[in-house]
Amino acid sequence: MARVSQEHLDARRRQILDGAARCFARNGFHATSMQDVLTEVGLSAGAVYRYFRGKDELIAAIAEEAFAGVRGAFVEASRATPPPTPDVLLGAVLRLFLEERIPGADRQAFPRLILQVWSETLRDEQLAATLEAGFRGMREIWAGLVTAYQENGLLPAGVSADHMVRILIAIAQGCIAQQALFGDLSVEILEEGVRGLMSMRTQSPS
Amino acid sequence: MARVSQEHLDARRRQILDGAARCFARNGFHATSMQDVLTEVGLSAGAVYRYFRGKDELIAAIAEEAFAGVRGAFVEASRATPPPTPDVLLGAVLRLFLEERIPGADRQAFPRLILQVWSETLRDEQLAATLEAGFRGMREIWAGLVTAYQENGLLPAGVSADHMVRILIAIAQGCIAQQALFGDLSVEILEEGVRGLMSMRTQSPS
Repeated sequence: MARVSQEHLDARRRQILDGAARCFARNGFHATSMQDVLTEVGLSAGAVYRYFRGKDELIAAIAEEAFAGVRGAFVEASRATPPPTPDVLLGAVLRLFLEERIPGADRQAFPRLILQVWSETLRDEQLAATLEAGFRGMREIWAGLVTAYQENGLLPAGVSADHMVRILIAIAQGCIAQQALFGDLSVEILEEGVRGLMSMRTQSPS
Repeated sequence: MARVSQEHLDARRRQILDGAARCFARNGFHATSMQDVLTEVGLSAGAVYRYFRGKDELIAAIAEEAFAGVRGAFVEASRATPPPTPDVLLGAVLRLFLEERIPGADRQAFPRLILQVWSETLRDEQLAATLEAGFRGMREIWAGLVTAYQENGLLPAGVSADHMVRILIAIAQGCIAQQALFGDLSVEILEEGVRGLMSMRTQSPS
Protein backbone atom coordinates (compact mmCIF):
# COMPACT_ATOMS: atom_id res chain seq x y z
CA MET A 1 0.00 0.00 0.00
CA ALA A 2 1.37 3.40 -0.93
CA ARG A 3 2.18 5.76 1.91
CA VAL A 4 -0.02 8.81 2.03
CA SER A 5 0.86 12.18 3.51
CA GLN A 6 -0.91 13.66 6.57
CA GLU A 7 -2.01 16.47 4.29
CA HIS A 8 -3.75 14.01 2.03
CA LEU A 9 -5.44 12.30 5.00
CA ASP A 10 -6.65 15.66 6.36
CA ALA A 11 -8.01 16.74 2.99
CA ARG A 12 -9.86 13.47 2.58
CA ARG A 13 -11.33 13.78 6.09
CA ARG A 14 -12.41 17.36 5.31
CA GLN A 15 -14.04 16.20 2.06
CA ILE A 16 -16.04 13.52 3.88
CA LEU A 17 -17.15 15.85 6.68
CA ASP A 18 -18.28 18.54 4.22
CA GLY A 19 -20.21 16.02 2.14
CA ALA A 20 -21.88 14.51 5.20
CA ALA A 21 -22.76 17.99 6.46
CA ARG A 22 -24.42 18.82 3.12
CA CYS A 23 -26.45 15.59 3.27
CA PHE A 24 -27.54 16.08 6.90
CA ALA A 25 -28.43 19.74 6.32
CA ARG A 26 -30.44 18.84 3.20
CA ASN A 27 -32.35 15.76 4.29
CA GLY A 28 -31.90 15.54 8.03
CA PHE A 29 -29.84 13.09 10.00
CA HIS A 30 -32.41 10.29 10.05
CA ALA A 31 -33.25 10.32 6.37
CA THR A 32 -29.56 10.27 5.37
CA SER A 33 -27.87 6.89 4.90
CA MET A 34 -24.14 6.19 4.79
CA GLN A 35 -24.73 5.33 1.13
CA ASP A 36 -26.03 8.89 0.57
CA VAL A 37 -22.82 10.21 2.10
CA LEU A 38 -20.67 7.95 -0.10
CA THR A 39 -22.54 9.14 -3.20
CA GLU A 40 -22.21 12.79 -2.16
CA VAL A 41 -18.45 12.63 -1.62
CA GLY A 42 -17.83 10.24 -4.50
CA LEU A 43 -15.73 7.82 -2.45
CA SER A 44 -15.92 4.10 -1.80
CA ALA A 45 -17.20 2.65 1.47
CA GLY A 46 -13.67 1.47 2.27
CA ALA A 47 -12.26 4.98 1.85
CA VAL A 48 -14.90 6.56 4.08
CA TYR A 49 -15.05 3.92 6.83
CA ARG A 50 -11.32 4.33 7.29
CA TYR A 51 -12.15 7.74 8.82
CA PHE A 52 -15.65 7.35 10.27
CA ARG A 53 -17.39 4.18 11.33
CA GLY A 54 -20.87 5.56 10.82
CA LYS A 55 -23.28 8.49 10.98
CA ASP A 56 -22.82 8.86 14.75
CA GLU A 57 -19.11 9.48 14.39
CA LEU A 58 -19.71 11.90 11.53
CA ILE A 59 -22.18 14.01 13.47
CA ALA A 60 -19.97 13.96 16.59
CA ALA A 61 -17.01 15.22 14.53
CA ILE A 62 -19.16 17.96 13.00
CA ALA A 63 -20.39 19.06 16.45
CA GLU A 64 -16.85 19.14 17.85
CA GLU A 65 -15.64 21.21 14.92
CA ALA A 66 -18.45 23.72 15.43
CA PHE A 67 -17.51 24.17 19.10
CA ALA A 68 -13.85 24.53 18.22
CA GLY A 69 -14.74 27.23 15.68
CA VAL A 70 -16.78 29.23 18.18
CA ARG A 71 -14.12 28.83 20.88
CA GLY A 72 -11.49 30.10 18.48
CA ALA A 73 -13.56 33.18 17.63
CA PHE A 74 -14.00 33.97 21.32
CA VAL A 75 -10.39 33.45 22.29
CA GLU A 76 -9.39 35.71 19.41
CA ALA A 77 -11.91 38.40 20.41
CA SER A 78 -11.18 38.28 24.13
CA ARG A 79 -7.54 39.29 23.63
CA ALA A 80 -8.58 42.97 23.48
CA THR A 81 -8.76 45.13 26.67
CA PRO A 82 -11.51 45.91 27.43
CA PRO A 83 -13.01 42.97 25.56
CA PRO A 84 -15.53 43.73 22.78
CA THR A 85 -19.08 44.24 24.07
CA PRO A 86 -21.61 41.37 23.69
CA ASP A 87 -23.16 42.80 20.50
CA VAL A 88 -19.77 42.65 18.76
CA LEU A 89 -18.82 39.24 20.18
CA LEU A 90 -22.17 37.67 19.35
CA GLY A 91 -21.92 39.17 15.88
CA ALA A 92 -18.58 37.40 15.43
CA VAL A 93 -20.13 34.09 16.51
CA LEU A 94 -23.12 34.43 14.22
CA ARG A 95 -20.86 35.33 11.32
CA LEU A 96 -19.20 31.93 11.76
CA PHE A 97 -22.56 30.19 11.52
CA LEU A 98 -23.89 32.27 8.64
CA GLU A 99 -20.82 32.29 6.47
CA GLU A 100 -20.45 29.48 4.04
CA ARG A 101 -19.11 26.94 6.53
CA ILE A 102 -20.11 24.02 4.36
CA PRO A 103 -18.63 24.35 0.87
CA GLY A 104 -21.38 24.10 -1.73
CA ALA A 105 -24.22 24.74 0.73
CA ASP A 106 -26.35 27.83 1.42
CA ARG A 107 -26.46 30.16 4.46
CA GLN A 108 -29.11 28.05 6.16
CA ALA A 109 -27.24 24.75 5.89
CA PHE A 110 -24.99 25.09 8.92
CA PRO A 111 -27.69 26.41 11.30
CA ARG A 112 -29.96 23.58 10.12
CA LEU A 113 -27.26 21.10 10.88
CA ILE A 114 -26.94 22.49 14.41
CA LEU A 115 -30.69 22.00 14.92
CA GLN A 116 -30.26 18.40 13.81
CA VAL A 117 -27.46 17.93 16.31
CA TRP A 118 -29.56 19.34 19.16
CA SER A 119 -32.45 17.10 18.28
CA GLU A 120 -30.22 14.05 17.91
CA THR A 121 -28.64 14.75 21.30
CA LEU A 122 -31.90 13.77 22.98
CA ARG A 123 -31.42 10.19 21.82
CA ASP A 124 -27.63 9.87 21.72
CA GLU A 125 -25.79 9.91 25.04
CA GLN A 126 -22.35 10.17 23.46
CA LEU A 127 -23.40 13.23 21.48
CA ALA A 128 -25.11 14.68 24.57
CA ALA A 129 -21.80 14.39 26.45
CA THR A 130 -19.96 16.14 23.57
CA LEU A 131 -22.52 18.94 23.61
CA GLU A 132 -22.44 19.32 27.38
CA ALA A 133 -18.64 19.56 27.41
CA GLY A 134 -18.76 22.15 24.62
CA PHE A 135 -21.40 24.15 26.46
CA ARG A 136 -19.35 24.06 29.68
CA GLY A 137 -16.33 25.34 27.75
CA MET A 138 -18.40 28.20 26.28
CA ARG A 139 -19.65 29.19 29.73
CA GLU A 140 -16.11 29.35 31.10
CA ILE A 141 -14.83 31.53 28.27
CA TRP A 142 -17.84 33.86 28.47
CA ALA A 143 -17.56 34.03 32.28
CA GLY A 144 -14.02 35.37 31.90
CA LEU A 145 -15.31 38.01 29.49
CA VAL A 146 -18.15 39.07 31.77
CA THR A 147 -15.70 39.44 34.65
CA ALA A 148 -13.54 41.62 32.39
CA TYR A 149 -16.60 43.78 31.61
CA GLN A 150 -17.07 44.27 35.35
CA GLU A 151 -13.39 45.09 35.91
CA ASN A 152 -13.57 47.66 33.12
CA GLY A 153 -16.69 49.36 34.52
CA LEU A 154 -18.92 48.19 31.66
CA LEU A 155 -21.16 46.13 33.93
CA PRO A 156 -22.28 46.59 37.57
CA ALA A 157 -20.39 44.30 39.97
CA GLY A 158 -23.58 42.77 41.39
CA VAL A 159 -24.59 40.98 38.20
CA SER A 160 -24.16 37.18 38.28
CA ALA A 161 -21.64 36.43 35.55
CA ASP A 162 -22.93 32.90 35.00
CA HIS A 163 -26.57 33.96 34.65
CA MET A 164 -25.67 36.63 32.14
CA VAL A 165 -23.48 34.14 30.28
CA ARG A 166 -26.41 31.79 29.85
CA ILE A 167 -28.46 34.59 28.28
CA LEU A 168 -25.63 35.51 25.93
CA ILE A 169 -25.34 31.87 24.83
CA ALA A 170 -29.14 31.72 24.54
CA ILE A 171 -29.04 34.65 22.11
CA ALA A 172 -26.53 32.78 19.93
CA GLN A 173 -28.61 29.60 20.08
CA GLY A 174 -31.86 31.44 19.33
CA CYS A 175 -30.28 33.22 16.36
CA ILE A 176 -29.11 29.86 15.03
CA ALA A 177 -32.66 28.53 15.42
CA GLN A 178 -34.16 31.54 13.62
CA GLN A 179 -31.68 31.27 10.78
CA ALA A 180 -32.35 27.54 10.44
CA LEU A 181 -36.12 28.03 10.51
CA PHE A 182 -36.58 31.28 8.57
CA GLY A 183 -33.26 32.11 6.92
CA ASP A 184 -33.50 35.89 7.06
CA LEU A 185 -31.19 36.78 9.93
CA SER A 186 -28.08 38.89 9.46
CA VAL A 187 -25.15 39.88 11.65
CA GLU A 188 -26.39 43.50 11.52
CA ILE A 189 -29.83 42.56 12.88
CA LEU A 190 -28.19 40.65 15.72
CA GLU A 191 -25.77 43.44 16.61
CA GLU A 192 -28.43 46.18 16.54
CA GLY A 193 -30.89 44.07 18.48
CA VAL A 194 -28.40 43.27 21.24
CA ARG A 195 -27.34 46.93 21.44
CA GLY A 196 -31.04 47.81 21.74
CA LEU A 197 -31.48 45.48 24.70
CA MET A 198 -28.29 46.85 26.28
CA SER A 199 -29.72 50.39 26.02
CA MET A 200 -32.99 49.42 27.74
CA ARG A 201 -33.67 51.05 31.14
CA THR A 202 -34.96 48.88 33.95
CA GLN A 203 -37.21 51.71 35.22
CA SER A 204 -39.06 54.66 33.72
CA PRO A 205 -37.10 57.94 33.95
CA SER A 206 -38.57 59.97 36.81
CA MET B 1 -74.38 6.02 18.08
CA ALA B 2 -74.79 7.86 21.35
CA ARG B 3 -74.43 11.64 21.21
CA VAL B 4 -71.39 12.93 23.03
CA SER B 5 -71.00 16.36 24.59
CA GLN B 6 -68.47 18.94 23.35
CA GLU B 7 -66.90 18.72 26.76
CA HIS B 8 -66.30 15.02 26.28
CA LEU B 9 -64.83 15.58 22.80
CA ASP B 10 -62.50 18.27 24.15
CA ALA B 11 -61.34 16.10 27.04
CA ARG B 12 -60.63 13.20 24.71
CA ARG B 13 -58.68 15.46 22.36
CA ARG B 14 -56.67 16.79 25.32
CA GLN B 15 -55.95 13.23 26.48
CA ILE B 16 -54.63 12.26 23.03
CA LEU B 17 -52.48 15.39 22.66
CA ASP B 18 -50.93 14.95 26.13
CA GLY B 19 -50.17 11.29 25.46
CA ALA B 20 -48.63 12.04 22.07
CA ALA B 21 -46.56 14.85 23.60
CA ARG B 22 -45.21 12.45 26.24
CA CYS B 23 -44.26 9.92 23.53
CA PHE B 24 -42.58 12.52 21.29
CA ALA B 25 -40.70 14.10 24.21
CA ARG B 26 -39.51 10.69 25.41
CA ASN B 27 -38.51 8.96 22.18
CA GLY B 28 -38.47 11.65 19.55
CA PHE B 29 -40.88 12.19 16.73
CA HIS B 30 -39.33 9.70 14.31
CA ALA B 31 -39.04 6.80 16.73
CA THR B 32 -42.65 7.19 17.86
CA SER B 33 -45.35 5.26 15.96
CA MET B 34 -49.09 5.89 16.03
CA GLN B 35 -49.31 2.53 17.83
CA ASP B 36 -47.08 3.94 20.60
CA VAL B 37 -49.48 6.87 20.95
CA LEU B 38 -52.50 4.51 21.09
CA THR B 39 -50.81 2.45 23.80
CA GLU B 40 -49.84 5.57 25.78
CA VAL B 41 -53.37 7.02 25.80
CA GLY B 42 -55.09 3.63 26.12
CA LEU B 43 -57.52 4.27 23.26
CA SER B 44 -58.39 2.37 20.11
CA ALA B 45 -57.17 3.43 16.67
CA GLY B 46 -60.75 4.36 15.75
CA ALA B 47 -61.06 6.65 18.75
CA VAL B 48 -57.78 8.44 18.03
CA TYR B 49 -58.06 8.73 14.24
CA ARG B 50 -61.40 10.46 14.73
CA TYR B 51 -59.38 13.43 16.03
CA PHE B 52 -56.00 13.16 14.31
CA ARG B 53 -55.16 11.40 11.07
CA GLY B 54 -51.53 10.84 11.94
CA LYS B 55 -48.34 12.04 13.62
CA ASP B 56 -48.15 15.11 11.37
CA GLU B 57 -51.52 16.37 12.56
CA LEU B 58 -50.61 15.65 16.17
CA ILE B 59 -47.37 17.59 16.05
CA ALA B 60 -49.04 20.50 14.18
CA ALA B 61 -51.73 20.70 16.88
CA ILE B 62 -49.08 20.63 19.63
CA ALA B 63 -47.11 23.43 17.90
CA GLU B 64 -50.23 25.56 17.48
CA GLU B 65 -51.15 25.12 21.14
CA ALA B 66 -47.66 26.18 22.22
CA PHE B 67 -47.90 29.39 20.19
CA ALA B 68 -51.38 30.10 21.53
CA GLY B 69 -50.07 29.68 25.08
CA VAL B 70 -47.18 32.10 24.55
CA ARG B 71 -49.43 34.60 22.78
CA GLY B 72 -51.87 34.46 25.69
CA ALA B 73 -49.10 35.14 28.21
CA PHE B 74 -47.94 38.16 26.21
CA VAL B 75 -51.36 39.63 25.66
CA GLU B 76 -52.02 39.27 29.39
CA ALA B 77 -48.69 40.89 30.32
CA SER B 78 -48.89 43.71 27.80
CA ARG B 79 -52.10 45.11 29.34
CA ALA B 80 -50.02 46.98 31.96
CA THR B 81 -48.75 50.56 31.33
CA PRO B 82 -45.81 50.75 31.01
CA PRO B 83 -45.56 47.12 29.95
CA PRO B 84 -43.34 44.83 32.05
CA THR B 85 -39.66 44.99 31.06
CA PRO B 86 -38.18 42.16 28.93
CA ASP B 87 -36.72 40.28 31.91
CA VAL B 88 -40.20 39.96 33.44
CA LEU B 89 -41.94 39.14 30.16
CA LEU B 90 -39.38 36.55 29.13
CA GLY B 91 -39.62 35.05 32.61
CA ALA B 92 -43.37 34.65 32.10
CA VAL B 93 -42.79 32.90 28.75
CA LEU B 94 -40.17 30.55 30.14
CA ARG B 95 -42.40 29.70 33.10
CA LEU B 96 -44.95 28.42 30.56
CA PHE B 97 -42.34 26.14 29.00
CA LEU B 98 -40.84 24.94 32.29
CA GLU B 99 -44.03 24.34 34.22
CA GLU B 100 -45.55 20.95 33.86
CA ARG B 101 -47.28 21.58 30.54
CA ILE B 102 -47.52 17.89 29.74
CA PRO B 103 -49.30 16.02 32.55
CA GLY B 104 -47.12 13.18 33.78
CA ALA B 105 -43.91 14.47 32.17
CA ASP B 106 -40.86 16.24 33.65
CA ARG B 107 -39.62 19.85 33.24
CA GLN B 108 -37.54 18.95 30.21
CA ALA B 109 -40.35 17.27 28.28
CA PHE B 110 -41.94 20.36 26.75
CA PRO B 111 -38.67 22.07 25.73
CA ARG B 112 -37.55 18.76 24.17
CA LEU B 113 -40.77 18.60 22.24
CA ILE B 114 -40.17 22.11 20.89
CA LEU B 115 -36.71 21.02 19.68
CA GLN B 116 -38.35 18.10 17.90
CA VAL B 117 -40.81 20.48 16.25
CA TRP B 118 -38.01 22.77 15.05
CA SER B 119 -36.09 19.85 13.62
CA GLU B 120 -39.17 18.36 11.99
CA THR B 121 -39.98 21.72 10.39
CA LEU B 122 -36.98 21.33 8.11
CA ARG B 123 -38.67 18.41 6.38
CA ASP B 124 -42.37 19.29 6.72
CA GLU B 125 -43.64 22.28 4.74
CA GLN B 126 -47.01 22.35 6.47
CA LEU B 127 -45.36 22.51 9.88
CA ALA B 128 -42.90 25.11 8.59
CA ALA B 129 -45.86 27.29 7.56
CA THR B 130 -47.44 26.88 11.02
CA LEU B 131 -44.18 27.87 12.68
CA GLU B 132 -43.62 30.83 10.39
CA ALA B 133 -47.13 32.16 11.05
CA GLY B 134 -46.62 31.74 14.80
CA PHE B 135 -43.26 33.51 14.64
CA ARG B 136 -44.79 36.38 12.67
CA GLY B 137 -47.51 36.72 15.31
CA MET B 138 -44.90 36.81 18.08
CA ARG B 139 -42.94 39.52 16.28
CA GLU B 140 -46.04 41.69 15.95
CA ILE B 141 -46.97 41.40 19.62
CA TRP B 142 -43.40 42.08 20.76
CA ALA B 143 -43.10 45.01 18.33
CA GLY B 144 -46.07 46.65 20.04
CA LEU B 145 -44.37 46.17 23.40
CA VAL B 146 -41.06 47.61 22.22
CA THR B 147 -42.88 50.66 20.86
CA ALA B 148 -44.55 51.03 24.26
CA TYR B 149 -41.11 50.89 25.93
CA GLN B 150 -40.01 53.73 23.68
CA GLU B 151 -43.16 55.78 24.38
CA ASN B 152 -42.58 55.31 28.11
CA GLY B 153 -38.95 56.44 27.98
CA LEU B 154 -37.58 52.96 28.77
CA LEU B 155 -35.80 52.63 25.44
CA PRO B 156 -34.11 55.20 23.14
CA ALA B 157 -36.26 56.09 20.11
CA GLY B 158 -33.52 55.18 17.62
CA VAL B 159 -33.54 51.46 18.36
CA SER B 160 -35.09 49.30 15.63
CA ALA B 161 -38.06 47.62 17.28
CA ASP B 162 -38.00 44.62 14.94
CA HIS B 163 -34.29 43.94 15.44
CA MET B 164 -34.66 44.06 19.20
CA VAL B 165 -37.73 41.83 18.97
CA ARG B 166 -35.74 39.17 17.18
CA ILE B 167 -33.16 39.16 19.97
CA LEU B 168 -35.88 38.90 22.62
CA ILE B 169 -37.40 35.93 20.78
CA ALA B 170 -33.91 34.47 20.36
CA ILE B 171 -33.43 34.58 24.14
CA ALA B 172 -36.66 32.62 24.62
CA GLN B 173 -35.65 30.10 21.94
CA GLY B 174 -32.13 29.73 23.33
CA CYS B 175 -33.46 29.16 26.85
CA ILE B 176 -35.80 26.47 25.49
CA ALA B 177 -32.80 24.84 23.78
CA GLN B 178 -30.69 24.96 26.97
CA GLN B 179 -33.50 23.50 29.06
CA ALA B 180 -34.05 20.72 26.51
CA LEU B 181 -30.34 19.94 26.29
CA PHE B 182 -29.19 20.43 29.89
CA GLY B 183 -32.29 20.76 32.05
CA ASP B 184 -30.89 23.14 34.67
CA LEU B 185 -32.41 26.47 33.66
CA SER B 186 -34.76 28.40 35.94
CA VAL B 187 -36.93 31.47 35.56
CA GLU B 188 -34.69 33.27 38.08
CA ILE B 189 -31.54 32.62 36.02
CA LEU B 190 -33.29 33.97 32.92
CA GLU B 191 -34.59 37.10 34.66
CA GLU B 192 -31.26 37.93 36.33
CA GLY B 193 -29.31 37.27 33.15
CA VAL B 194 -31.54 39.51 31.04
CA ARG B 195 -31.39 42.27 33.68
CA GLY B 196 -27.61 41.90 33.60
CA LEU B 197 -27.51 42.46 29.85
CA MET B 198 -29.88 45.42 30.19
CA SER B 199 -27.48 46.97 32.72
CA MET B 200 -24.46 46.65 30.41
CA ARG B 201 -22.87 49.89 29.19
CA THR B 202 -21.95 50.19 25.55
CA GLN B 203 -18.80 52.18 26.38
CA SER B 204 -16.35 52.37 29.27
CA PRO B 205 -17.14 55.16 31.75
CA SER B 206 -14.72 58.02 31.11
